[in-house]
Amino acid sequence: MDAKEYTGGVLDAARMASKTAARAKTEEKNAVLEKMAENLLEARSELKDANSSDLDAGRASGLSSAMLDRLELTDKRIDSMAEAIRTVTRLKDPVGGVIDGWTLPNGLRLRKVRVPIGVICIIYESRPNVTADAASLCLKSGNAVILRGGKEALQSNLAIHRQLARACEGGSIDPNAIQMIETPDRDVVRELLRAEGYVDVVIPRGGSGLIRTVAQTATVPVIKHYEGICHTYVDETADLEMAIAICDNAKCQRPGVCNAMETLLVDEKVAEELLGRLAPLLQEKGVELRGCPRTREILPGIKEATEEDWRTEYLDLILSVKVVSGLQEAMDHIDTYGSHHSDAIVTESFSRAERFLAEVDSATVYVNASTRFTDGGEFGLGAEIGISTDKLHARGPMALEELTSYKWQIVGSGQLRS
Amino acid sequence: MDAKEYTGGVLDAARMASKTAARAKTEEKNAVLEKMAENLLEARSELKDANSSDLDAGRASGLSSAMLDRLELTDKRIDSMAEAIRTVTRLKDPVGGVIDGWTLPNGLRLRKVRVPIGVICIIYESRPNVTADAASLCLKSGNAVILRGGKEALQSNLAIHRQLARACEGGSIDPNAIQMIETPDRDVVRELLRAEGYVDVVIPRGGSGLIRTVAQTATVPVIKHYEGICHTYVDETADLEMAIAICDNAKCQRPGVCNAMETLLVDEKVAEELLGRLAPLLQEKGVELRGCPRTREILPGIKEATEEDWRTEYLDLILSVKVVSGLQEAMDHIDTYGSHHSDAIVTESFSRAERFLAEVDSATVYVNASTRFTDGGEFGLGAEIGISTDKLHARGPMALEELTSYKWQIVGSGQLRS
Repeated sequence: MDAKEYTGGVLDAARMASKTAARAKTEEKNAVLEKMAENLLEARSELKDANSSDLDAGRASGLSSAMLDRLELTDKRIDSMAEAIRTVTRLKDPVGGVIDGWTLPNGLRLRKVRVPIGVICIIYESRPNVTADAASLCLKSGNAVILRGGKEALQSNLAIHRQLARACEGGSIDPNAIQMIETPDRDVVRELLRAEGYVDVVIPRGGSGLIRTVAQTATVPVIKHYEGICHTYVDETADLEMAIAICDNAKCQRPGVCNAMETLLVDEKVAEELLGRLAPLLQEKGVELRGCPRTREILPGIKEATEEDWRTEYLDLILSVKVVSGLQEAMDHIDTYGSHHSDAIVTESFSRAERFLAEVDSATVYVNASTRFTDGGEFGLGAEIGISTDKLHARGPMALEELTSYKWQIVGSGQLRS
Repeated sequence: MDAKEYTGGVLDAARMASKTAARAKTEEKNAVLEKMAENLLEARSELKDANSSDLDAGRASGLSSAMLDRLELTDKRIDSMAEAIRTVTRLKDPVGGVIDGWTLPNGLRLRKVRVPIGVICIIYESRPNVTADAASLCLKSGNAVILRGGKEALQSNLAIHRQLARACEGGSIDPNAIQMIETPDRDVVRELLRAEGYVDVVIPRGGSGLIRTVAQTATVPVIKHYEGICHTYVDETADLEMAIAICDNAKCQRPGVCNAMETLLVDEKVAEELLGRLAPLLQEKGVELRGCPRTREILPGIKEATEEDWRTEYLDLILSVKVVSGLQEAMDHIDTYGSHHSDAIVTESFSRAERFLAEVDSATVYVNASTRFTDGGEFGLGAEIGISTDKLHARGPMALEELTSYKWQIVGSGQLRS
């Protein structure tokens, strides 16, 4: 079967199944979700067997130990995967929510009501838990999902998927509401990305390379989740104790994630004191500092930060540091080099806090807090499918509501347009 | 200057200017809008001269009389164009609106605040008034706009654009916030559609061919405005007087627009009575009927509706008619052949009305009203940039709020993530 034919079958099935998912009551969806969690726990040894064969193949093909670690399904990770599904079960169903509504002078009653998007395609890399996370969020929001994971995790993903789809059996939701692409054939991905009228949105999750390729190939809508080159700007009026704690947290608490700080900007008037106290603390935790010329006057031992550094998402214990003349230079730097993800100011100045909140064009802007809070769970949204760096439809953490569209329902008594 | 270089200049200027538009206060934007309206009225003879040369060229190249009519700028149309801008002036500024907000258990205060999208590119066909409409809506919502109209209207569009951009002079908004592409070179369009990081969204307005090409070429986000193949389903319990008035209105009140009815579906139990009364009324108004076999048993004189007919947006005094066995067949027909734009049921049955509202997957679904109401103005949104047939970001009429994104503003007092 060629890629077109195979994809055609998947798409037709998804389209049909999406109607059953869209129509399902919350209690039906929750029952399937609970079954998914149970199935995963019961199939523990099957999942670990499948995962072993992925790990063996990964070792043979020379995957890095970090990659192998991300790939591994331990007992604890299987437990968390099931627990994450149960968290989704407890979240409020967004479908049917009335966003807005009013009555027109002619008596027509308008309601803007949340509905599922339809068919969502998720294209992702290595971590197998994304399979369960994405499927549970899409199902809870009444959508059908087509999952396409990385080839390193194929056996693990297929084993997880089997348990998820099985949870639909015997119920009102067609098991094809959760489908997984079983072949590493890239032509299938291409077909999915160009399936107008079948795929309502594609969400790529992974490195910039993957996202760029998806954005450039797709003719269906894409919600992009690009990297986070996040900044913290320490203003001259900052409480320096607070600034140090925030920088430490933003850089070190979990350096490998998109909301970690990659660049510190500091006002020249407090640079010496702040850097003098912060640098040893960070270096003790293994952080490599790279500085602009003025930073290196204060911290002569550190490497120079190059143009490349300002544009890099390290995802590692590395921090680039720049001394700036004030708020405007800080905001210009963020605008030029940032990725419009999460940026923070530490300040006691009301006016500068307000300007930063208003003028920095990022999905999330902070005053006096760590950028690490950019996360659906931390925001109180319950869970997230990712963090959108796009400006359309969803910006920042995407949770259940962001996996819905809406329709206008209009009720009249014979109104005519004149 | 080649297309890449030319477009690069436009994009850089738009990016810079978008910041001035984003920061402008409502009163500054309103002052520019009022100046735009005044400028257009004052430049009346200049606009008509430019328009004459477009009309001459159009006649020479054999444009249809309908096309020439759409192209013409009469005094009345210039007045309406100015009046439309004044309407936008009076609308509420969406920028800065707080969509949602809450305080987390750790004391962080979150606000989801409306912000401009950034740089919007509008690609459109013939009617020159779109130039003023689109520019005023984009400006009011704090965006920069790049306009690219059809080559038939180029001189008219340029003359209108000159007056619009001139309205910014001397104020805080950079006149490059409203730019018009001056060349018919298609490579420029291609560059615009692939200007990731510069163009935040493209909105194509025009025929399906234009929209399809834009969607397939673009790597930046697109909000599509496809055709309206709108249905009215007359249920067996319908008040037939009401059904007849609604069908007449939906078909005849203005047949050339996307929310006009193209297909009538009627329950077999009332088909004979409804069609017996409705057909002569429509035919008297010049409507050509095309029917399914059962319709033609009732109305033997009419043409047969082909498979092609069910998929056609006539935009004309033509109506295809199908007798169906009930609600399910009507909804199946709408799902198969419709364009998910606007569909109506006429019924006295509460349960069937509810099913239609819930199950028909269209941007706007009606009970007992004419589909002609799908319009930003009629909805009470004040104005519209178009009617989205997409499901992401905006669905149905797009007004000022739909021309905005949002950002998360988070205010803390030193919170760290643990």
